[in-house]
Amino acid sequence: MPGTTDREIAAMRRAFELAGNGPRGLNPQVGAVLLAPDGSVLTEGWHRGAGTPHAEVDALSQLPAGAARGATAVVSLEPCNHTGRTGPCALALIEAGVARVVYSASDPGDASAGGAQRLRDGGVDVVDGVLADEGRALIHDWLTVQRLGRPHVTVKWAQSLDGRAAAADGTSQWITGPAARADVHRRRSEADAIVVGTGTLFSDDPVLTARRPDGTLHDRQPMPVVLGQRAVPDDALVRRHPLPFLHRDGENLGGESSNEPSLMAELRELGVQRVFVEGGPTIASAFVRAGLADEILAYIAPTLIGSGSAGDDRPALRSLGVETIADQRRLRVSSIETLGDDLLVIASPVPPTSPSEGDA
Amino acid sequence: MPGTTDREIAAMRRAFELAGNGPRGLNPQVGAVLLAPDGSVLTEGWHRGAGTPHAEVDALSQLPAGAARGATAVVSLEPCNHTGRTGPCALALIEAGVARVVYSASDPGDASAGGAQRLRDGGVDVVDGVLADEGRALIHDWLTVQRLGRPHVTVKWAQSLDGRAAAADGTSQWITGPAARADVHRRRSEADAIVVGTGTLFSDDPVLTARRPDGTLHDRQPMPVVLGQRAVPDDALVRRHPLPFLHRDGENLGGESSNEPSLMAELRELGVQRVFVEGGPTIASAFVRAGLADEILAYIAPTLIGSGSAGDDRPALRSLGVETIADQRRLRVSSIETLGDDLLVIASPVPPTSPSEGDA
Repeated sequence: MPGTTDREIAAMRRAFELAGNGPRGLNPQVGAVLLAPDGSVLTEGWHRGAGTPHAEVDALSQLPAGAARGATAVVSLEPCNHTGRTGPCALALIEAGVARVVYSASDPGDASAGGAQRLRDGGVDVVDGVLADEGRALIHDWLTVQRLGRPHVTVKWAQSLDGRAAAADGTSQWITGPAARADVHRRRSEADAIVVGTGTLFSDDPVLTARRPDGTLHDRQPMPVVLGQRAVPDDALVRRHPLPFLHRDGENLGGESSNEPSLMAELRELGVQRVFVEGGPTIASAFVRAGLADEILAYIAPTLIGSGSAGDDRPALRSLGVETIADQRRLRVSSIETLGDDLLVIASPVPPTSPSEGDA
Repeated sequence: MPGTTDREIAAMRRAFELAGNGPRGLNPQVGAVLLAPDGSVLTEGWHRGAGTPHAEVDALSQLPAGAARGATAVVSLEPCNHTGRTGPCALALIEAGVARVVYSASDPGDASAGGAQRLRDGGVDVVDGVLADEGRALIHDWLTVQRLGRPHVTVKWAQSLDGRAAAADGTSQWITGPAARADVHRRRSEADAIVVGTGTLFSDDPVLTARRPDGTLHDRQPMPVVLGQRAVPDDALVRRHPLPFLHRDGENLGGESSNEPSLMAELRELGVQRVFVEGGPTIASAFVRAGLADEILAYIAPTLIGSGSAGDDRPALRSLGVETIADQRRLRVSSIETLGDDLLVIASPVPPTSPSEGDA
């Protein structure tokens, strides 16, 4: 790569590794390596989460005063220019006498961006965009939170081809097959929180862990979130989840026409970057209705259920606030996969076009 | 092809063409060519429908007595061995002195099969299975009727991803796009009858023709069949269909646990080989419930509709008689096609496995 040395590239890959030592959360995962003018490694650092030093400062703090003079700082994210619970990293690097800064992803934050410019203004040699794809991938979910202003939400449901989640009597076992269930568990493990309604809690008593087909736990587990008025029973399996659950009434999810404090705002403050809405139909519908479903996973079993003879119906989605066809929630399908006998349709909502659009 | 001459192969292709002159209906379409011993064409014939001479007899009837002596009969279907409204063709060929019979498809009929054996017993040289794939394709739908004992039924519906046919207020315009609608019309044109319920008749007032995207009629048009108690209004568009419609109450469709006379039996007697069930939800559900849906076409639009806020729901399927999940109607999906923004899932029901199966 032009403008960077082999040692800087190697240090950047190391910074990506170091970043992974820190937690996913309110702040991005960031790693830093300080190189001496001869290219040798002086020290390393990483960010341990909101309220703790940023990666560059963590690295600097391990050196005696003056030891970073003339050094090169290799950082996975653009050093910040923001005084929050910690001071601006750009200033700390300048004051430490760092001569050169090499970073990967740019900081998109309104408050924190501008670090590169401040460094250049301070006479520091700055190289940006080094291994930028990997640098952005590392903080993809955090970047999404910055863009959305809230955690990313995946809403999942399983249905028969004709849109039912269960038969008239409520039974629903094994609508979808093992491949679809394994896919759900893998995706649960990629989320920071898993949301379930008290209806599903009472009917299915799910433990809400992310499990492999052999029953063992995936390495990452989402925090369980229970929504609804009813109390969680003392013997509910969710209490055996390795993480303590959050219980909220679910009256204010956030999203369209929502006031603070909302569930989304609270989850963001807790450092949740990805939410997996497990169900059931009432909760899934509420997230879609609130405009919070960034990604929809519809697992479709090759079966027909219909309603019961007495009219009892168990649709996978209930009211979405669509009273007439003009208000339908159009989707853009991004993929259709076959999972055993089942289909997985992955889609995202298409924002409604306002009548005035195109008038500008 | 071993055992046949080039002239016989050419005559078989001509027999396939001649067969198409006859009507689709209760009897198969059959064509015949009589060749002189030198291979020249003596005469041709085809079957003009139930109650009229079979193709071989039609061809023989155009020759003076004795003129077929030593000839070769090339026929698209095995000559019959059955005395119905006409005598057995095998006997007619023997009596005419035909020396050799070359045919394509075998006759599967319980009563009519055995013609080849009778010919051989009569000293005629018989070659079977000539261009057999084309010969069977020509009468594919008729063969299906023989196998099922009734017309083949396709049940079609359009739905949102979540299984709704319309919004709460009944509006449903343009759920699926133009490619899906063109596909429906092409498939309508391949059917002999198109079935609609009075509910759809009153709500949508369909003309039930098979039309090209430019609005012109396909060459073949299905006969409209209206099911329901209500009278068809004098100004209903279905009255402008080029074929007169049939109106029945739809109480006895045929199929599982049905007594005669059923709609299916009546349609079979009318020569209907393929039925296209257009809808709406009540009629589609009734055919699935009766076990009559040989093929299911679910056109799925990338949209979510849900139920209305007041609970009004317009599912694409209503009751299928499934009260508990063990009774679900499992499907085998044969294809998934993309039609513009829409999906077409083609499936057929999997017969339920009886508990005693495998005990034998």
